[in-house]
Amino acid sequence: MKTVAIYGELGSYTEQAAIHYFGRGAKLTPCRYISEVFESVEHGTDYGIVPIENSIEGAVTATYDQLIGLRLNIVGETIIRINHCLIARKGVSLRDVRKVYSHQQALGQCKEYLQKLKIEAIPYYDTAGSVKMLGEQGFGDSAAIASERAAQMYGMKILSKDIETNKHNYTRFLVVSKKASASRGNKTSIVFTAKNKPGSLYDALSAFAKNNVDLTYIQSRPVIGRPWIYNFYVDFKGDAHDEKIKDTLSQLRKAAKFVKILGSYKSARQ
Amino acid sequence: MKTVAIYGELGSYTEQAAIHYFGRGAKLTPCRYISEVFESVEHGTDYGIVPIENSIEGAVTATYDQLIGLRLNIVGETIIRINHCLIARKGVSLRDVRKVYSHQQALGQCKEYLQKLKIEAIPYYDTAGSVKMLGEQGFGDSAAIASERAAQMYGMKILSKDIETNKHNYTRFLVVSKKASASRGNKTSIVFTAKNKPGSLYDALSAFAKNNVDLTYIQSRPVIGRPWIYNFYVDFKGDAHDEKIKDTLSQLRKAAKFVKILGSYKSARQ
Repeated sequence: MKTVAIYGELGSYTEQAAIHYFGRGAKLTPCRYISEVFESVEHGTDYGIVPIENSIEGAVTATYDQLIGLRLNIVGETIIRINHCLIARKGVSLRDVRKVYSHQQALGQCKEYLQKLKIEAIPYYDTAGSVKMLGEQGFGDSAAIASERAAQMYGMKILSKDIETNKHNYTRFLVVSKKASASRGNKTSIVFTAKNKPGSLYDALSAFAKNNVDLTYIQSRPVIGRPWIYNFYVDFKGDAHDEKIKDTLSQLRKAAKFVKILGSYKSARQ
Repeated sequence: MKTVAIYGELGSYTEQAAIHYFGRGAKLTPCRYISEVFESVEHGTDYGIVPIENSIEGAVTATYDQLIGLRLNIVGETIIRINHCLIARKGVSLRDVRKVYSHQQALGQCKEYLQKLKIEAIPYYDTAGSVKMLGEQGFGDSAAIASERAAQMYGMKILSKDIETNKHNYTRFLVVSKKASASRGNKTSIVFTAKNKPGSLYDALSAFAKNNVDLTYIQSRPVIGRPWIYNFYVDFKGDAHDEKIKDTLSQLRKAAKFVKILGSYKSARQ
């Protein structure tokens, strides 16, 4: 049986993503931190699955910061539609609720709803984890934001459904493993550091243009300890074994200070 | 007297940035949310000052998301060295501390210190705000992370100094105003949306390369309600009134779907 480390508790959106990607046959291990998922895979769990990007809140920076030190490969991705519910213990009604616990990103996605009802938002490490905590500790003035599945799993009541501000709410998850993907992909993720001289970011990007490689995403993150120097995370179409991509990467290596291939895999989108 | 809306309470790093930029002659108004700073300037406060980027934690996304709807101009920037202290009420000693309150980014910057002492991190809206709150409510098992100045301002005790993991810790702040900068700048910030077709990001960036304009920063943020479509925030050298920059922007307007100039101003770095 495949073993999979997931970010968050059972009932979290990451668990949904894991079931969507692996089916119901995998053994899932919940992790409290994103770094714990990566460590678990380095120590022998077959796969890890972590959020990388939400269509409203943007990049999950904790995941990006793990990728740079990664001795693992990205082997897949999957996208989940996010539907948030307001969840409380049985006996608690909507007018009792003064505080709501959830993951920072989920609180941000429901900001308008919370502001309208004048409910205080308290960040917690996980959506499903906040439901579990309320089930155990049972504050009478508190609720959590998580999925319908999380409410069912911990025997809690749904006070309100679809409370996210914007309904076009999707999260993309990455699947990581010690082994590279066995099958050929149509998408590759890399990270590079530009040289510290004028025009260097553009020089690095020109490798893609010259070879007609389609960049689909670019995200910058600071290099820790080197103020105003950045790592650039780039996604593009193609597999690192394609001739065109090999040429592109060899040109990029000349133009950039540092290049690392994070993995080639099958895109979750068309 | 100049009026300036600042993010966070008196004693926050933003207050330090305001004093550094404007001197001691300005009247400062603390704001609890970044959006409140922008609203305050739209309603008549002369200037606003907000964090945009930390050299460890990266982009302050709440600020980026305000810039896109901005009817204000970026007129300046300033950089502050961040030195975090662990602060508690008089009578509380280090071994009593089980919980620490602070801004999410400050907690992230002191993660190693907190993990070593097994102190639970609780996100709060502001560094100085958490010191003020502890001074008023006085939990005997709690501390805050903020500047030395915040400790003095609220009559609290410093339990430990320089607790940030990495000492190369700087935050860059933007100064915004209704009026554009009167003097010529050497740096410009813009935001653009690429066209929704292959190669469009590269096409947009090529306007800079053709004109030999040096990109210093690029940051992507999702377009709310349009999954996997992004706004790109770009900083580059030069003033929007320079001939070379005017040409660049007119080429960019042809290659991109949407372009907005956020402001030209004097760079805080060489």
